[in-house]
Amino acid sequence: QILDPLLLHQHLRYNPLRDSWVLVSAHRMKRPWAGQVERPPEEHIPRYDPNNPLCPGNKRANGKGNPDYDSTFVFENDFPALQPDAPDPGSDQDPLFQSKAARGVCKVMCFHPWSDVTLPLMKKEEVVNVIDKWAELVEELGTIYPWVQIFENKGAMMGCSNPHPHCQVWASNFLPNEPALSDRCQRAYYEKHGEPMLLQYAKREERVVVESSDWLAVVPYWATWPYQTLLLPRRHVLRISDLTTEEREGLAAIMKRLLTKYDNLFEVSFPYSMGWHGAPTGPYLKEDNSHWQLHAHYYPPLLRSATVKKFMVGYEMLAQEQRDLTPEQAAEKLRNLPEEHYKTR
Amino acid sequence: QILDPLLLHQHLRYNPLRDSWVLVSAHRMKRPWAGQVERPPEEHIPRYDPNNPLCPGNKRANGKGNPDYDSTFVFENDFPALQPDAPDPGSDQDPLFQSKAARGVCKVMCFHPWSDVTLPLMKKEEVVNVIDKWAELVEELGTIYPWVQIFENKGAMMGCSNPHPHCQVWASNFLPNEPALSDRCQRAYYEKHGEPMLLQYAKREERVVVESSDWLAVVPYWATWPYQTLLLPRRHVLRISDLTTEEREGLAAIMKRLLTKYDNLFEVSFPYSMGWHGAPTGPYLKEDNSHWQLHAHYYPPLLRSATVKKFMVGYEMLAQEQRDLTPEQAAEKLRNLPEEHYKTR
Ligand SMILES: O=P(O)(O)O[C@H]1O[C@H](CO)[C@@H](O)[C@H](O)[C@H]1O
Ligand SMILES: O=P(O)(O)O[C@H]1O[C@H](CO)[C@@H](O)[C@H](O)[C@H]1O
Repeated sequence: QILDPLLLHQHLRYNPLRDSWVLVSAHRMKRPWAGQVERPPEEHIPRYDPNNPLCPGNKRANGKGNPDYDSTFVFENDFPALQPDAPDPGSDQDPLFQSKAARGVCKVMCFHPWSDVTLPLMKKEEVVNVIDKWAELVEELGTIYPWVQIFENKGAMMGCSNPHPHCQVWASNFLPNEPALSDRCQRAYYEKHGEPMLLQYAKREERVVVESSDWLAVVPYWATWPYQTLLLPRRHVLRISDLTTEEREGLAAIMKRLLTKYDNLFEVSFPYSMGWHGAPTGPYLKEDNSHWQLHAHYYPPLLRSATVKKFMVGYEMLAQEQRDLTPEQAAEKLRNLPEEHYKTR
Repeated sequence: QILDPLLLHQHLRYNPLRDSWVLVSAHRMKRPWAGQVERPPEEHIPRYDPNNPLCPGNKRANGKGNPDYDSTFVFENDFPALQPDAPDPGSDQDPLFQSKAARGVCKVMCFHPWSDVTLPLMKKEEVVNVIDKWAELVEELGTIYPWVQIFENKGAMMGCSNPHPHCQVWASNFLPNEPALSDRCQRAYYEKHGEPMLLQYAKREERVVVESSDWLAVVPYWATWPYQTLLLPRRHVLRISDLTTEEREGLAAIMKRLLTKYDNLFEVSFPYSMGWHGAPTGPYLKEDNSHWQLHAHYYPPLLRSATVKKFMVGYEMLAQEQRDLTPEQAAEKLRNLPEEHYKTR
């Protein structure tokens, strides 16, 4: 299946998690690029910057001071997109001008006291601390909120406005579009095939980047972004908070390996947006969510080099997503990269 | 409805063309921006550049020469994402590894022989030529292909790799995700309400930017991008090729007005991706498409200034699109801008 020469010609692939198609046009990598070139990511970040609101001991925009934290540090976003107390605009009768209440909380989580490290360069135990904190937040916010979105925007190219290693956690009183779609697709698959979609998938996918006894990172068959990956446990796990101590250690190890390969690809701190999808929480805790399998999506924008990204623009926005190299080519490229970070070699 | 103070608090709005929701968090514009700043668009483009493959008389990558065109000029993309003859990978039985044949053609269309003009700065008759050519291509490619996507990526920020004014036309043997979704939504609405969704909408929408007797450009109630607009005829029109001579002139006039306002917003050649959606073609020509209404989407990335765009990243990619000012605020801002272009004032 992987070596099928037909897959080197343009074709469509189906994404069963989103019930949509991606156009794969491998031959497009041949075209010369005369378009926008990005600034390469800043490589010299001071360990401590007295003006950085995320560093230990510093003051933030709202005047509050950060503690002198030495592991992870979580605080409420000073400019949250979701607040707990917004009023209900209540116009759900009108089919054309329909609005709904949106309530929630937005947290920021620093991964480490130092600004000059990233997850692949952190110690394994330090990454385990991050995972434990993720699990804790999903548990805590998930008692009330149906959806807790953990996500990391890494790099200025991905809209990240602070180089200090951090992620965000936005919890909402609604199931957002993407998880709602994924829930629907996984449920339909489960009803038809009697096993969770992503468990069957994990057993068959050969586009592996890194793997261990309990985890797997692949370039999915339906990858949209050039070097997109899907990270998931081999065991049936619903939520990040359900991971055992051993699985959290395994996750820290495989995250370090995957992210090291990412950084090694263009020898640059690799930009991406990533996030976790697991079974919904809040009122859904009482329901059967066997169709769900915990997984993380990594969406990195770079295509050709450290400074040339894939533009998801005109055709992609108005018609359908399109990729310029095959997922097989991307998986092979990533798989063959060394597991030692270029900065510590 | 427009002045409802509740709409200044965060809430969700429903997009009936995509059956999805957008999170509106007006108060987020207050946060300071310390993130990536884009290069402002190049303002000094030579009228003719001997090395630009899109200029009249020049040679392109494949060695072919352009004619000495003096109006629009259409040619086949030298690095097409869709070719007419790709083989069928044929694996549509496997629910997890599903592929399908993708065939089509990709054309490029220059708007004008000069590199230093854009649509708002072109003469109205010249814009009418562009519209006539669009209609001709939809007619011609639409005899075979079910979908003909006309789109323009404008500005380096939107992945456009050549400053010469041009758009692209990609025709495919499949209905891409976005039009397939829009078809489904418009059909369901029509079946329920007995009138095309966008016709009912056009009569009620007050978030108007520019209008004339036969056209309307609005910031839709469900706009996702900060200054997104929707352009549509008032009459029930299925496809761009169905527009009368008078309506084409009206369209040229309203496009010039809308795009002039866009340029005036930050006094810069405004980047965007835009494209036309109309009833599908090819085999669909024989079916009833009364639920469709021709329209164009404009998706501009800029948020705060000529150099600070909206990043649709982590939360948007993994959960749900989010906007930082209300559509009412955007519509009002655009509506109040002068209709004379800042470059010719
Ligand atoms: O064909 P172009 O203009 O070189 O390419 C641009 O538009 C295409 C269609 O939206 C995208 O796939 C490319 O990523 C973008 O850079
Ligand atoms: O909250 P931040 O990091 O300043 O903002 C970033 O992430 C948000 C969530 O994905 C986006 O809405 C913003 O556009 C982006 O710049």
